[in-house]
Amino acid sequence: MAHMTASSLLETIGARTETDFMGARKIPAAAYWGIQTLRAVENFSITGTTISVYPLLIRALAQIKHAAVLANFELGLIDQTKKDAIQQACENIEQGQLLDQFVVDVIQGGAGTSTNMNANEVIANRALEILGLDRGEYSTIHPNGDVNMGQSTNDVYPTAIRIATIQGTQSLLSAMAHLRRALERKAAEFDDVVKMGRTQLQDAVPMTLGQEFSTYAVMVDEDERRIREGLVHLHEINLGATAIGTGINTHREYAANVCAHLRRITGLPLVTSSNLVEATQDCGAFVLFSGMLKRVAVKLSKVCNDLRLLASGPRAGFAEINLPPRQAGSSIMPGKVNPVIPEVVNQVAFDVIGNDLTITMAAEAGQLQLNAFEPIIARSLFASLTSLTSACTSLADLCIDGITANKEYLRTQVEASIGVVTVLNPLIGYDAATTIARQALASGRSVTSLVLESGLLTAHELDEVLRPERLANPQSDSGERALA
Amino acid sequence: MAHMTASSLLETIGARTETDFMGARKIPAAAYWGIQTLRAVENFSITGTTISVYPLLIRALAQIKHAAVLANFELGLIDQTKKDAIQQACENIEQGQLLDQFVVDVIQGGAGTSTNMNANEVIANRALEILGLDRGEYSTIHPNGDVNMGQSTNDVYPTAIRIATIQGTQSLLSAMAHLRRALERKAAEFDDVVKMGRTQLQDAVPMTLGQEFSTYAVMVDEDERRIREGLVHLHEINLGATAIGTGINTHREYAANVCAHLRRITGLPLVTSSNLVEATQDCGAFVLFSGMLKRVAVKLSKVCNDLRLLASGPRAGFAEINLPPRQAGSSIMPGKVNPVIPEVVNQVAFDVIGNDLTITMAAEAGQLQLNAFEPIIARSLFASLTSLTSACTSLADLCIDGITANKEYLRTQVEASIGVVTVLNPLIGYDAATTIARQALASGRSVTSLVLESGLLTAHELDEVLRPERLANPQSDSGERALA
Amino acid sequence: MAHMTASSLLETIGARTETDFMGARKIPAAAYWGIQTLRAVENFSITGTTISVYPLLIRALAQIKHAAVLANFELGLIDQTKKDAIQQACENIEQGQLLDQFVVDVIQGGAGTSTNMNANEVIANRALEILGLDRGEYSTIHPNGDVNMGQSTNDVYPTAIRIATIQGTQSLLSAMAHLRRALERKAAEFDDVVKMGRTQLQDAVPMTLGQEFSTYAVMVDEDERRIREGLVHLHEINLGATAIGTGINTHREYAANVCAHLRRITGLPLVTSSNLVEATQDCGAFVLFSGMLKRVAVKLSKVCNDLRLLASGPRAGFAEINLPPRQAGSSIMPGKVNPVIPEVVNQVAFDVIGNDLTITMAAEAGQLQLNAFEPIIARSLFASLTSLTSACTSLADLCIDGITANKEYLRTQVEASIGVVTVLNPLIGYDAATTIARQALASGRSVTSLVLESGLLTAHELDEVLRPERLANPQSDSGERALA
Amino acid sequence: MAHMTASSLLETIGARTETDFMGARKIPAAAYWGIQTLRAVENFSITGTTISVYPLLIRALAQIKHAAVLANFELGLIDQTKKDAIQQACENIEQGQLLDQFVVDVIQGGAGTSTNMNANEVIANRALEILGLDRGEYSTIHPNGDVNMGQSTNDVYPTAIRIATIQGTQSLLSAMAHLRRALERKAAEFDDVVKMGRTQLQDAVPMTLGQEFSTYAVMVDEDERRIREGLVHLHEINLGATAIGTGINTHREYAANVCAHLRRITGLPLVTSSNLVEATQDCGAFVLFSGMLKRVAVKLSKVCNDLRLLASGPRAGFAEINLPPRQAGSSIMPGKVNPVIPEVVNQVAFDVIGNDLTITMAAEAGQLQLNAFEPIIARSLFASLTSLTSACTSLADLCIDGITANKEYLRTQVEASIGVVTVLNPLIGYDAATTIARQALASGRSVTSLVLESGLLTAHELDEVLRPERLANPQSDSGERALA
Repeated sequence: MAHMTASSLLETIGARTETDFMGARKIPAAAYWGIQTLRAVENFSITGTTISVYPLLIRALAQIKHAAVLANFELGLIDQTKKDAIQQACENIEQGQLLDQFVVDVIQGGAGTSTNMNANEVIANRALEILGLDRGEYSTIHPNGDVNMGQSTNDVYPTAIRIATIQGTQSLLSAMAHLRRALERKAAEFDDVVKMGRTQLQDAVPMTLGQEFSTYAVMVDEDERRIREGLVHLHEINLGATAIGTGINTHREYAANVCAHLRRITGLPLVTSSNLVEATQDCGAFVLFSGMLKRVAVKLSKVCNDLRLLASGPRAGFAEINLPPRQAGSSIMPGKVNPVIPEVVNQVAFDVIGNDLTITMAAEAGQLQLNAFEPIIARSLFASLTSLTSACTSLADLCIDGITANKEYLRTQVEASIGVVTVLNPLIGYDAATTIARQALASGRSVTSLVLESGLLTAHELDEVLRPERLANPQSDSGERALA
Repeated sequence: MAHMTASSLLETIGARTETDFMGARKIPAAAYWGIQTLRAVENFSITGTTISVYPLLIRALAQIKHAAVLANFELGLIDQTKKDAIQQACENIEQGQLLDQFVVDVIQGGAGTSTNMNANEVIANRALEILGLDRGEYSTIHPNGDVNMGQSTNDVYPTAIRIATIQGTQSLLSAMAHLRRALERKAAEFDDVVKMGRTQLQDAVPMTLGQEFSTYAVMVDEDERRIREGLVHLHEINLGATAIGTGINTHREYAANVCAHLRRITGLPLVTSSNLVEATQDCGAFVLFSGMLKRVAVKLSKVCNDLRLLASGPRAGFAEINLPPRQAGSSIMPGKVNPVIPEVVNQVAFDVIGNDLTITMAAEAGQLQLNAFEPIIARSLFASLTSLTSACTSLADLCIDGITANKEYLRTQVEASIGVVTVLNPLIGYDAATTIARQALASGRSVTSLVLESGLLTAHELDEVLRPERLANPQSDSGERALA
Repeated sequence: MAHMTASSLLETIGARTETDFMGARKIPAAAYWGIQTLRAVENFSITGTTISVYPLLIRALAQIKHAAVLANFELGLIDQTKKDAIQQACENIEQGQLLDQFVVDVIQGGAGTSTNMNANEVIANRALEILGLDRGEYSTIHPNGDVNMGQSTNDVYPTAIRIATIQGTQSLLSAMAHLRRALERKAAEFDDVVKMGRTQLQDAVPMTLGQEFSTYAVMVDEDERRIREGLVHLHEINLGATAIGTGINTHREYAANVCAHLRRITGLPLVTSSNLVEATQDCGAFVLFSGMLKRVAVKLSKVCNDLRLLASGPRAGFAEINLPPRQAGSSIMPGKVNPVIPEVVNQVAFDVIGNDLTITMAAEAGQLQLNAFEPIIARSLFASLTSLTSACTSLADLCIDGITANKEYLRTQVEASIGVVTVLNPLIGYDAATTIARQALASGRSVTSLVLESGLLTAHELDEVLRPERLANPQSDSGERALA
Repeated sequence: MAHMTASSLLETIGARTETDFMGARKIPAAAYWGIQTLRAVENFSITGTTISVYPLLIRALAQIKHAAVLANFELGLIDQTKKDAIQQACENIEQGQLLDQFVVDVIQGGAGTSTNMNANEVIANRALEILGLDRGEYSTIHPNGDVNMGQSTNDVYPTAIRIATIQGTQSLLSAMAHLRRALERKAAEFDDVVKMGRTQLQDAVPMTLGQEFSTYAVMVDEDERRIREGLVHLHEINLGATAIGTGINTHREYAANVCAHLRRITGLPLVTSSNLVEATQDCGAFVLFSGMLKRVAVKLSKVCNDLRLLASGPRAGFAEINLPPRQAGSSIMPGKVNPVIPEVVNQVAFDVIGNDLTITMAAEAGQLQLNAFEPIIARSLFASLTSLTSACTSLADLCIDGITANKEYLRTQVEASIGVVTVLNPLIGYDAATTIARQALASGRSVTSLVLESGLLTAHELDEVLRPERLANPQSDSGERALA
């Protein structure tokens, strides 16, 4: 609720003066940003969070400016001195320097112009510094004329969002793989732990706890695959489109040239869209990608719902598994420990789903040749990527790895269940099984004790049919009526 | 707000009696459905809309039962007489017969059990009829024991949703291709119509109306591609999973066998999931597919927003294009015609986005070995598919095809615009262009008249630089500063 | 997926001809609707569901036309013969006649014009019939000139939606009160059933099952109160606004006059908005009211989630309560009964939440003097009202009423719990309680047995402190450290 | 994407040791927080944003602890020395001190326990400091035993969210009133500016620009009223509920006593819920309040959509009004200025709508006696309040105040419109008006010139009927057919 204010920025001792079409303004002498950034800071005081919280976006902006200056130099549009200075300034930022100079609010009007302008000004002033000149000496290196040459916010900004998203997604994919491996280890560890499966929260038929966890691992694995597929479409960029996609005032070799440089600088297989007018106004790729993150969120939430349910208790709950204690849950009851890690993952999921709606609305609201609402799309996408990455890592390290099973209790539950009667069908027949089940329900006794008492099967036979491997893979060679 | 009530169903003269674990009930003699369906009709009186509104779902259910009986016959689990009767009953339904016998509410509890039971009972009674027997003679052909043999709602129902979705999507893809072609025709027709492009609703630089429409065509084309990619994942089915995915009480050759039959019957390249426990509880494929439909909705809505904006007027608006009149918009003002077709498409989009949220919540709420909320997922997915298909067809036939352009007015606007000065930069220089632009803004005069007056360019030169092809493809050989 | 097509409507033998600005068309002779409705049917083939599924909306439209003709008659704008015929036609429709003549799709473009025109035409032709004239004799009674006199879709349609919503909400409130009473009965019945309370799915401290159900009753009660408060704002109507709220071409006494008649006819305390321009374009009342329905949905879903959890089992679950069996849950396992009623209520909740999003998007998309998307707002609002009403009734009658408690098991759980140690703090001290709790956790023994064994309390004292009334109202006179 | 890490916290030179049931940990010597906070920081590394960004929440927590210690003192449960120290520590925090000591992530598991523990520890250590003791000397003043006495996270945390929300809403209401007054001033300023009204983006009938802005003012005014109504329900708190609402281990006078103190300290008319079990698990008040904020967002977005549309141009758009320029929109086109303030407000609206969904999902996911997901509810609610407040202020100061109207152009449009013919109906008759309208459409000429030419009205008569006051209030004494 506390914002950086323009006035506090200007309280700095010493200032230079910059001028735009609205008039002259003092800029703190030490600032690498200039008048356009100042206007943006004054105009957008919304969240108090600046774009410096997105280092991947800042790096991508520098990479784009870097590629542009190389392309412009090759096309003979800028001289070597300027090129060298701008290139070095970009490289500084790519390496993480000057991050604190990116001061505009993450929610901003103007389709990202202020973010682009912030980058242009910081790069220009850093380049001037490299040349031994004062900040604000834009007659030598101009934020727009030189740093932004051949570009428009309308191609730079969506391209930067795509690059930052791709790189942020690499971290997410690593965290997901890390989570998947943790789940796979638990699946292996619990391979022989027989338990009751449940449908609609009612006891169904037996399975293994290993199957439970391998299911979660497969879910994460599938999501990783889908994300990798979806990521392909984000590699299509509109750099070279300039204002509306017609490439106005660019050299006809520029688009191909700058893309080649950007591919090399980023190491990403980027391609230029075949229809730049379409690419400049369309946010479909973000909608679809956010939809995939939403799917990840939905599944993580489902897994965490299950974990909290399976760990409910310790006595008046399912009590199948124990989550590792992470912190005290209560000041009175020794042992009251809450499932805080799954709970935080659930909340991340709700947040990601909310972000997806925000992105959907922003994408739908785009008009004619541009979507003016890309800043909130970027903000929401980056927020989802960051928190999902943290959530996967936390879930793996602080929860999954330490889970233990109450094996004996689970086996007891299987033996006490009515559902186990289903696997006896092929051996004792449907009618006998039905009779046993009804007796069990009415008397509160176990199916196994009733079967043994009836003499229908021997203890040895029962042990055989209730072997863990058999319960987890119960298909017969003869077939049998299945349950609805 | 009016529902079919169970009592009205029972008022039919003549009834047979069927019995389940809760007791005996009278069933209308003519009904192919039985007691389980009756219970479901009584339990779920929510929307008043029955599953018979989804003929593709009903056909898919029959195809699955058809495949199952063939598999069971091959495995020696059912005799030829029963098999022939059940097969013929299924074929009847596949051809569209008995649709009115599917009477359970589209919103229902029980994870789809009632839909599956409705199918089992109708097929059993039709098979009995084929054999010359009375309805309800389940000792000969039993809805569960015979028709549902080797199956569970938990594998039949999601498989049926997948098949119906794939087939419904074929219709959507046809409608989208139809819309795309209409847009492409307009793009070609308006290829030489120069107009002002706009970013953030402010005049930007020139383009052609053809580019405007080709952009829409490309958007639809991309969505078609993404949907085709997404459709692949819906071909993975869990038939053979039975209750929770362990395939309990099925023959170990059953899953592969029934899938092969279903591939042949449906003509679809279906495959059995590699992890049936996962496949039985996971609704991720529906979340992702709905996310794709949401993307289609977002783009259609954007296109319709643009069309309504471009057609605003006739005098106090953009007045770029004219939508074909479809109906009177007012009883007083002759000629007041509203953009009713884009408006209905916008509303379909809002509905699809709402459906996507419903699907998201239902998927997230799944617990342990099954998602009990698949019926609302199916309802919402089918509603989105149906209305999007109608929307695309309506938009193409009732709107796009009849659009005309106000060519002269558009050209006048380009000439009157300040933005056109941008293309003159390479010819008259940035400073001269700036001077011209400022004069134009202050005086209200056109850039072209000021340029001619200044003698900077001849009328011939101006005509040349403002040629439609040049404005739509303005890249120079020399390059130039671009706009932000 | 099957739609009523215009061609099938026209296959009727015998037709009259009607003409509008687009040309002449044949109308089935028997149809009360006319050419404007025909155009709408042809233009909007989206869902296949017609507005006749909203009898409350149709009745409200007739009530408005009824009030308008009385106002116009009083102002001397229409003669008695016409007035009498139109009035009688309206009364017929108010009584439920001619419902099948309302044939336009529930999703339609044109801001409700087609719905309004459908009403105008049906009323005009019924009035002509009353006068012994042929349908289509509009020179005598004109759908627009006479039936729609002094009105515009832009005031008629939102007013009708408000009236229908108010009346639909009365049904919802009745159903909610019915559900609340069912919950209150259970709260009283389970007043002395002690059980473990749980926070974060972990055992906490004791409470009674009566408190559990009275909580649900209070939730419903609060929602009833909030809805009644919210309903007040829907009584503000914009009738008299005509096209954009300036009341163009209405008599200056008309707005007050027609509102007075409408109050009498509907029996509702309607008032005319003080700013009709605002009232004509603002959909905020619908957004807020839908937000209230969403709140109802959220709470109902929470209650049903709890019920399904408390009824989980019968053996490997919480097993606190038993829901009445409604239908077979499986064909193999005798006694496998699923919580199908709570499940269907959960799905209704997800649908209502999706509808709320659709309404939000439609409201946000309104432009300038009118929201063109009111039809989808109406559709979504009515759908939510209808299904919530059904859900409350079903939940009360088919689930809550038949719930039973496993009292002995619940008491056993309390005794076996660690949490019960908390209530002993004031008697045995925090340190002794801590020791007992640790012993209980480690040994698997009960707190009570350990306390008895330790001699800290007598069996009589323990019985006293564990009395149900005391556990549910455990506040001491001395106070004590509470738990976090 | 950069997080504060626990390791960096611990790099501080000098440390004390604290111990909990999981073991001993080193705490930086200077830290007021303790081991429970440390565990939370390690467990929840999600967003990198700490709860210190919510000063209102921190203040509310201190106010609650302050009220609790006064109540406990009155009930004789704590001695005066401790009471005085704790009270003074709370007052320090209420005045804004020690804000940087609140270091847990805004998204956290554990239902707010970590936030509550963070407050308990900071207050305890500050109280120890006041007593001249070392931090960590919890035997004298214990974070739980003393600071949290009579409380539970489960009553403290939701109470604190309510108080912070009420106080944050006061700021929002001020900003809304500020915006409303700006709109009212513009409404007065534009009172006599006649313009065309539009429905469905098509020219309708005349109105004034003053009516346009007064409509927006009324919308904000209504929202202010609804928020004030909604705020009432947030004053109901559950302090005294402790763990699950049964008030376990509190003195029976405690709840009333602490509420009285809290009323005095906060100056808010807080009341204790009548059913504390219900109040402890129910998040309905937050769902409904967020729904109201969503309504505000929807309307602000609608207003900003309109403003951007009315300001579109400068030449190829509506060009009705001019927004004050805030920053350069482009580096090439002089005068290209974008509507950046409305654009940022639109984005805030999309964010608020996304937050509402997050809150909805979190509320729905609550289970049994507690909603574990209150932290994400608080985070989303506070974010919406903050950004809406900023948005209203920015919109008023940076946009509305500087809007100018193109009066002459607007009047020209009215005169050129076909819609103006509607007001002539009562004077020249419907048939003559129709003829004029058709001629105007076909010829491109104005209705007024055609009327003058026809001699139907004199220039004087036309001037009279087109007077601004008349166009804005066109109701006649005779009445007339209105338009649909």
